[in-house]
Amino acid sequence: MKPTTVYLVGAGPGDPELLTLRALKLIESAEVVVYDRLVSARILDLVPTGTARIFVGKAPGQHPLPQAEINDLLVRLAAAGRAVVRLKGGDPYVFGRGGEEAEHLVRHGIAVEVVPGVTAAAACAAAAGIPLTHRGLATGVRFVTGHGKGDQELDLDWRGLADPATTLVVYMGLANLATLSARLMAAGRAPDTPVAAVSRATLPRQRICRTTLGTMASAVAAAGLEAPTLLIVGAVVDLMETLGTRLPDAVDAPAPKVGHG
Amino acid sequence: MKPTTVYLVGAGPGDPELLTLRALKLIESAEVVVYDRLVSARILDLVPTGTARIFVGKAPGQHPLPQAEINDLLVRLAAAGRAVVRLKGGDPYVFGRGGEEAEHLVRHGIAVEVVPGVTAAAACAAAAGIPLTHRGLATGVRFVTGHGKGDQELDLDWRGLADPATTLVVYMGLANLATLSARLMAAGRAPDTPVAAVSRATLPRQRICRTTLGTMASAVAAAGLEAPTLLIVGAVVDLMETLGTRLPDAVDAPAPKVGHG
Repeated sequence: MKPTTVYLVGAGPGDPELLTLRALKLIESAEVVVYDRLVSARILDLVPTGTARIFVGKAPGQHPLPQAEINDLLVRLAAAGRAVVRLKGGDPYVFGRGGEEAEHLVRHGIAVEVVPGVTAAAACAAAAGIPLTHRGLATGVRFVTGHGKGDQELDLDWRGLADPATTLVVYMGLANLATLSARLMAAGRAPDTPVAAVSRATLPRQRICRTTLGTMASAVAAAGLEAPTLLIVGAVVDLMETLGTRLPDAVDAPAPKVGHG
Repeated sequence: MKPTTVYLVGAGPGDPELLTLRALKLIESAEVVVYDRLVSARILDLVPTGTARIFVGKAPGQHPLPQAEINDLLVRLAAAGRAVVRLKGGDPYVFGRGGEEAEHLVRHGIAVEVVPGVTAAAACAAAAGIPLTHRGLATGVRFVTGHGKGDQELDLDWRGLADPATTLVVYMGLANLATLSARLMAAGRAPDTPVAAVSRATLPRQRICRTTLGTMASAVAAAGLEAPTLLIVGAVVDLMETLGTRLPDAVDAPAPKVGHG
């Protein structure tokens, strides 16, 4: 039997309206959808009845399926000729480990097509009213992950991250708030640098906490934000006071009367 | 008359299949679509007959409409109660000057909704087979623009950009290839750092040129790539030899037999 192509599909931030047309078509024509915890329930509702769904994410209190087992599962499904869609939150090639899955498949002779998606940073920016680049405030933007490997200390280019002309977006930002805060300040970023923590962007329980680099660890903890939460760090965050006026769910920061946590 | 809401909509990289469902619905229900040169002809084909289209981009040999005039146009259309969609290539808040338009509108009492899109970096990455982050190769990714203001020299954080563990993506990369190459090497990035120049990603004339930091200025010029072209700089580019095998239009780099230009 000829193996099928595996589609690694970015599902975007969670709102089904932010799926691409291509993603929706692939979901509708799949025989098997393999997904993890960053794919929202509202997107799973679009998977047709009769299509198999395989959850490979982390249930509360349980370990996630090891990456090697996910890789092998995808190979087995493709080798069996099943039409497989591997759905990933956001974009498959931005912190999605999509490259690892694609490499494993290609090395086993399985063709892969990657469908890009709306990455979480863009969704959080639009939801909060924070342009990631803006004339006079940010000439560029940088994405890092706040989640270290295992119990390792975060190993980041702290000095480079301190550039005040670059917006910094931290994916998986809840994991190491105190470390991020301390190391960025030690590298020279000002304690009053504005920070927005955006939780569950585009989903019904979206929440946004406006804080500063110096106080973000306690402020985000006090707000009790849920994962996924991204941090946006930099001068552009102040623009949410002007641009964030259409945020029905911004319970922590009802713009334009934004409090500094 | 009550002003309408202006929708600043990310149109993605060009392939209409990479529009979001929300973007398509807004295009289909607009009375006026305001667009610039990064919105592809194939996407404009989706604008219904009878919907007004206003081009505010740069025609060959002509100056673009100044940003202030675009801003005023959007205010006038919304104040007149027209259903306005402002379409932007990629994502509105990543090098799209969407923040400037949104600020202007809000200051004139016009409500704005920003619809995020697939940014060009994600599209180029998927098209070329280059994960932007990858275990052991890149812990993060950084987006800068290669286009300076007017005739100014590029003013970037060169030392920060030289971090070898961060993938660097240069939007509008054709403008200053020699400067980018020289300054990044002067800041410590190795001349043999792999580079992919991705032109017109996801469009019919997509082309990809695999080169290195030291030789990219001459290699990209020799390949005659058209705008828009993004540069992806970093160790992850080598993954296209494995993952870029499904590139029908990769005329310069028919993976897996990739030449180093």
